[in-house]
Amino acid sequence: MSDFGFPLAHVASIPPYPPGRPIDAVAREFGLDPAAIVKLASNENPLGCSPRATEALAKAAAETHLYPDFDCYALKQALAAQLGVPATHVLPAAGSSELISLVARAFLDGDRKAVIPQYAFQAYEGAIGSVGAEAVIVPVRGWQADLDAMLAAVDDRVHLIYLATPNNPTGTVVPTVDLERFVEALPPHVLLVLDEAYREFLPPEQQPDIARLFARRRNLLVMRTFSKVHGLAALRVGYGIGDPELLGLLRRLQLPFSVGAPAQAAAIAALGDAEFVERGRRENAAERQRMEERFAALGIEHVPSFGNFVLARTGNGPATAQALMRRGVIVRPVAGSGLVDWIRVSVGTARENDIFFEKLDDVRADAKSAVVA
Amino acid sequence: MSDFGFPLAHVASIPPYPPGRPIDAVAREFGLDPAAIVKLASNENPLGCSPRATEALAKAAAETHLYPDFDCYALKQALAAQLGVPATHVLPAAGSSELISLVARAFLDGDRKAVIPQYAFQAYEGAIGSVGAEAVIVPVRGWQADLDAMLAAVDDRVHLIYLATPNNPTGTVVPTVDLERFVEALPPHVLLVLDEAYREFLPPEQQPDIARLFARRRNLLVMRTFSKVHGLAALRVGYGIGDPELLGLLRRLQLPFSVGAPAQAAAIAALGDAEFVERGRRENAAERQRMEERFAALGIEHVPSFGNFVLARTGNGPATAQALMRRGVIVRPVAGSGLVDWIRVSVGTARENDIFFEKLDDVRADAKSAVVA
Repeated sequence: MSDFGFPLAHVASIPPYPPGRPIDAVAREFGLDPAAIVKLASNENPLGCSPRATEALAKAAAETHLYPDFDCYALKQALAAQLGVPATHVLPAAGSSELISLVARAFLDGDRKAVIPQYAFQAYEGAIGSVGAEAVIVPVRGWQADLDAMLAAVDDRVHLIYLATPNNPTGTVVPTVDLERFVEALPPHVLLVLDEAYREFLPPEQQPDIARLFARRRNLLVMRTFSKVHGLAALRVGYGIGDPELLGLLRRLQLPFSVGAPAQAAAIAALGDAEFVERGRRENAAERQRMEERFAALGIEHVPSFGNFVLARTGNGPATAQALMRRGVIVRPVAGSGLVDWIRVSVGTARENDIFFEKLDDVRADAKSAVVA
Repeated sequence: MSDFGFPLAHVASIPPYPPGRPIDAVAREFGLDPAAIVKLASNENPLGCSPRATEALAKAAAETHLYPDFDCYALKQALAAQLGVPATHVLPAAGSSELISLVARAFLDGDRKAVIPQYAFQAYEGAIGSVGAEAVIVPVRGWQADLDAMLAAVDDRVHLIYLATPNNPTGTVVPTVDLERFVEALPPHVLLVLDEAYREFLPPEQQPDIARLFARRRNLLVMRTFSKVHGLAALRVGYGIGDPELLGLLRRLQLPFSVGAPAQAAAIAALGDAEFVERGRRENAAERQRMEERFAALGIEHVPSFGNFVLARTGNGPATAQALMRRGVIVRPVAGSGLVDWIRVSVGTARENDIFFEKLDDVRADAKSAVVA
């Protein structure tokens, strides 16, 4: 690489983000009909998005030639009204992904460290690596983030912690009382980034009261996304909630116009459709329960999930995912997180989940006959 | 800021990007009807986008819940076919903006420097500052980037050069023969980033032959965008052309899914509509000429432009822009680039440009009577 202007040493070793494979890519590779493929690999909302968001998108299509509002004025107003905070306390971004990157670029460098729990969202390690910082990975205790051990791992060089609840890919939640104690106990030189991408899949009474968290800690960033229950993953929009001073700092690092204009319009519309969100939560909970029962009936271990996905121990995750893919069902192997024997399956529609289990039966039957033969 | 997890020292001093003000923001501030506002502040295509892109957007609206293809497979194929290069030589991104940021993050840090010409696109300085690197700004010669002086400014700590042709905000071009000589003369430890955002506004025979540039230099990144002549600024999509090894490195730093799915679909469709691009170039050239003649007739100095905008010396740029804004015309003050007496006016439709000159007359008449009074 020496003839390419001498890139910084750490860049070549940034862990790449392994996305769920797109339907078209799988169709091409295996010669399948894209319409027949079931994708349960990226924790998307199988119900699509709110019809109000679709309508907003159609309107936005008339003004593609105009740059988006970099200030996201209208979206900020809508978020502030819904959250009951001033508009200065929210920062729209190109999905949680952009916020995950921005905090790393603002708070980490080659001399600093970030603490994350084992089995965390893989984008955290990518962001930490992207600035040449060190990731301190703290082992879980019985699938739960071990907050005491994370606290103990904080030294003078740690300036950032990423923590998700519900967590992807395990589906576990951090109990509210533990979260509040953790937020209070962390020393002031650490920014805590709380990832609530899957918040809306929790029953409302189990969703963390973030006002109580901010009452205990100013250097806290709460991240949310429109990619999950709101069904707008294609558009790249999420937001951070935090102190205006912190958000002002992150904004200096943001790409100009990072949230597209149709994305802003659709997000505002989606925010106004509480019924769609409630339906997403309800149908997800029902289907998730059915999937968990089915895994149990098959004798396949799984982690009880609070998200829109289930982590299940099928044995040899990469091989299982590959065999399923050949049969037109895309799930996520999680060997990259050290979960070699597991796959993560998104909760789809009833029909999609039935197809998944049907194909999983095939795969298991084939594996058995291969062993016998 | 010390209670916010100790951000890196340079972050607070990153120069903010000053976007053109959105129509809605100006309408709110001055109590104007948004429909009556003329925006000539962001070099957008007044013709909108190709009807094919609009159609592609409508189709994409049916699948908002699915994550985009992070590999941008179909868009890469379309670009490769049009450019006559392998698909591995193109990298789609969230506008040129993302590429401008990626190269800074890959090649610069607090110990390194980047060279840019005076009066360059302001996002370059933002990207250089975002990683705490030093920007070496080389004075222009008669509005032209001084390539000899830029070459002389390269020392061991310089690893990046940004250079645009046509250049924003001046509208000047780098003559092809000078560009080829420059590309050849630059030492190997420097990555040259050539920004061709306004390329399509040049007559085809004046557009640089980038194959000739790549034949002379491997560590070169050519950036293009769909935000200008293609009229897709709202969607955030552009692309880099370069060696696969370089692009692979930049991709490690890219946000997962940085180009939205509707953006990819619209870009592919836009790429297929050569007629729309040709019409954009033709109408821009005709209107630009009319504007330049009008400035000349008014005795207002301007820089002969090869882009879709004109830099004009109205006197006190910020005050002129403010007075025009109050009258419903948004233009760009460029005092931040050191051009205190100048404004940059995008080439709009004939009607929009007529309104601009009408309001400019008002502003000048008011200023005169204020002086007399």
